[in-house]
Amino acid sequence: MKAKFLILATLSTISTFASEGGEHENPFSKEFLAMFFILIAAVLGRFIARRFKQSEVLGELIIGIALGAALFSMNNRLVTTIRYQNEMREIITATSELEAEFDDAVVQYVRNETELPEDAQDRIISTMTSDNFVNSFLNANYTLLFSSLGVLLLLFMVGLEVSTAEMIKMGSVSFSVATLGVVFPFVLGYLVAAFLIPSVESQNVAIFIGATLAATSIGITARVFKDAKALDFKESKLVLGAAVIDDIMGLVLLAVVSGLVTSGSIDFTDVVVIVAKALGFLVFVFLSERYFLRHVIQFFAFFAGKNTFLLFPFTLLLLFAWLASAIGLAPIVGAFCAGLVLKDELFKPFKKKDQSLEDLIAPLEGIFAPVFFVLMGFQVDIMAFGNLDVLWAGLLLTVVAIAGKMLASVFLPKTYDRLLVGIGLVPRGEVGLIFASIGKAVGVLNDELFAVVIIVVILTTLVTPPMLNVRLRKLVASK
Amino acid sequence: MKAKFLILATLSTISTFASEGGEHENPFSKEFLAMFFILIAAVLGRFIARRFKQSEVLGELIIGIALGAALFSMNNRLVTTIRYQNEMREIITATSELEAEFDDAVVQYVRNETELPEDAQDRIISTMTSDNFVNSFLNANYTLLFSSLGVLLLLFMVGLEVSTAEMIKMGSVSFSVATLGVVFPFVLGYLVAAFLIPSVESQNVAIFIGATLAATSIGITARVFKDAKALDFKESKLVLGAAVIDDIMGLVLLAVVSGLVTSGSIDFTDVVVIVAKALGFLVFVFLSERYFLRHVIQFFAFFAGKNTFLLFPFTLLLLFAWLASAIGLAPIVGAFCAGLVLKDELFKPFKKKDQSLEDLIAPLEGIFAPVFFVLMGFQVDIMAFGNLDVLWAGLLLTVVAIAGKMLASVFLPKTYDRLLVGIGLVPRGEVGLIFASIGKAVGVLNDELFAVVIIVVILTTLVTPPMLNVRLRKLVASK
Repeated sequence: MKAKFLILATLSTISTFASEGGEHENPFSKEFLAMFFILIAAVLGRFIARRFKQSEVLGELIIGIALGAALFSMNNRLVTTIRYQNEMREIITATSELEAEFDDAVVQYVRNETELPEDAQDRIISTMTSDNFVNSFLNANYTLLFSSLGVLLLLFMVGLEVSTAEMIKMGSVSFSVATLGVVFPFVLGYLVAAFLIPSVESQNVAIFIGATLAATSIGITARVFKDAKALDFKESKLVLGAAVIDDIMGLVLLAVVSGLVTSGSIDFTDVVVIVAKALGFLVFVFLSERYFLRHVIQFFAFFAGKNTFLLFPFTLLLLFAWLASAIGLAPIVGAFCAGLVLKDELFKPFKKKDQSLEDLIAPLEGIFAPVFFVLMGFQVDIMAFGNLDVLWAGLLLTVVAIAGKMLASVFLPKTYDRLLVGIGLVPRGEVGLIFASIGKAVGVLNDELFAVVIIVVILTTLVTPPMLNVRLRKLVASK
Repeated sequence: MKAKFLILATLSTISTFASEGGEHENPFSKEFLAMFFILIAAVLGRFIARRFKQSEVLGELIIGIALGAALFSMNNRLVTTIRYQNEMREIITATSELEAEFDDAVVQYVRNETELPEDAQDRIISTMTSDNFVNSFLNANYTLLFSSLGVLLLLFMVGLEVSTAEMIKMGSVSFSVATLGVVFPFVLGYLVAAFLIPSVESQNVAIFIGATLAATSIGITARVFKDAKALDFKESKLVLGAAVIDDIMGLVLLAVVSGLVTSGSIDFTDVVVIVAKALGFLVFVFLSERYFLRHVIQFFAFFAGKNTFLLFPFTLLLLFAWLASAIGLAPIVGAFCAGLVLKDELFKPFKKKDQSLEDLIAPLEGIFAPVFFVLMGFQVDIMAFGNLDVLWAGLLLTVVAIAGKMLASVFLPKTYDRLLVGIGLVPRGEVGLIFASIGKAVGVLNDELFAVVIIVVILTTLVTPPMLNVRLRKLVASK
């Protein structure tokens, strides 16, 4: 015990001792400290989760929520800037065109041109007009960058454990599960919104809420399956395939619904182009593995020599993530595809016998992936649970959001664990958030309904890890 | 060959096909693409270097210079923003207080308040007033963040291969080499500047130039030693120790010289505080290893369990980098110290028998370190070589910059390879740049003299890898 006190005392002395400035005022040193604390938080969250026999990712999410709420209430600039990232970007762009000092322009714009709640306006103004806002804006973005890299690496590793052949074999089953997993939540969400939520005043609003419930975010499920070493199960492959297809359907749905809501009509050319691009990407991925990946690696190896084994996989990950994003798909779909097409045996000449791609990427993933889940927690606004009407509507929609995805697997053959598949598709995560924020931007969702959707996203994300774990344990026990 | 064409054709079709927008307009996807190209550039640079039997780092630097020059001439926003990073930060801060639209404020401020050359003004204005400047500013900073992480990981790995005991044993020798390596270049630089460079018009300017030549940047040398697997040589340890001490001396020198130049006097309290902080940090590092690191790891492991082996080293790296930076030292000194105090055997209970810290960190370092060296190349302005007066003064100072560091090792016992030690201290790198930019900021160095110092930094950095390699080969052959 003495040693611990000594450590704490020394650390705190040192950190008081340390002050700003000097020769090397490194622009990134604050970010190193932020990352330090985020990783420590992740370690603590996992520890608590293990104590309660829950999955580690739930621990990371919950410590993220707790820490995020605490820091947010203390007006911490990192958390505030992360939460209002999109708003702040918009404000920066808009104020740059105002003829005024930056601080004045921010106050003027936020007060007069945005419809944010009073409290959010105050926080945004206080953060954006504080000294060194540029630095805290940059720090928030650095942290989000690391988090984004983390989830890419996670999906890349998940992809490594699955093969394209397995995905294609599962293709039609994945497709039907994905389709039903879009249709059921959409219809149920529409009905609940239209008939049971009083503040929904038009068809369009109900349609948009239905569409938001159709989304699937694969990060949480992928992480739970990976931690439980369950990626080999056919249910895992089915869920992963369905999530990729769901991402494409989400794109289409968003185009259709936004068109319907903003112009009253659907632009079929748009829809065809979107589908063609997304399918084009997937076909490119599968063909690349079949016909030329091996040659590309050889070509790369001619230049990279012994570095091929490390650098080829990582550059392919970057390229596919960019490509997916450029097509309009989620970058993690690209990362997953990059993992999918790569196999250890492709690198035989460039690696030691016992080296594997997974061992190589694991340290990278192990460091950055926790940042993603802690930050997901940071972005949860527990104040959304404070308004009883909102809470009630949120709970109602959460029930149908969960039921809708569970129903998606109901026609599966008995050889599949239907519950596991259904639960795997439940989290709405950041995809639901993207839908919701577009709905807000086009004016379909007001603040209250936005908060309702946030509740659905939070709850579906939080219930999934424990539900999956219970189901996985039963399944393992019965095998 | 057919396959290659097929690939290129497909890739270019896909990338034309891909357009902006869609559901997941990910704010980081441009950065993934930039990182992709930087890593490809690094691979090509290394390939060329190997062909000419040069060290890989020289290849990365040179391809960075070539690519940087090409992109800069095409007004590429990433390279322009990286090059004028400091200027742009200053402009953003300054213009935020102007009562005008951002674009107008930039033009007004750059034209009237800065003393940048016409060409630089044009480029800065065109980049900062372009659409989406926020995004290109962020992208440049993301890339710099990865580069900064890369050099931290490099020095951390170098630290892993050296022990504190060895560093302490070398202490007094390192100290004397570091001292002479500061004194000789300072005196020689001062004399050359005062008597041979016509545009040096006062004592202060000559003193500042001398001080700039006293700096040492350890990144290049560490990389060459590491690539050549020469970190075991006593000369390597001597150079590393001297570089750490040199960083402290640089801090003191900067405080003294800036005081002398701006107020005409030296603030001895400042100097004492700086030295006390820096020594305090080093003493803390050495004591921590001796007395409580083992306990801290056990404490950490209580929470982190099997993740200890990955997460403890990385969080320690982040903490020490921040601490060093907060003290005023270079973050890489902190990273080096973190590597220094960690040993595989500390993690025996938390790792598989054949796992090593080096294997764990190598993939991280392998991906991010090249970014540092390519970006160092990006920042080289080859136009500096265009003015003959400047070039001549730069060459003159480069000669004494090299000679001064070589002389530092002249009193070493014969058992050391004196040349190797001397060459190892030659690169001025980013430390020289920091000195020079402070000199510019306080008005001691005009544009011309700044360009002179840039030439010294570039040349000392570029000549080191080949010189070290020649010497290392001789040494290995004679052993």
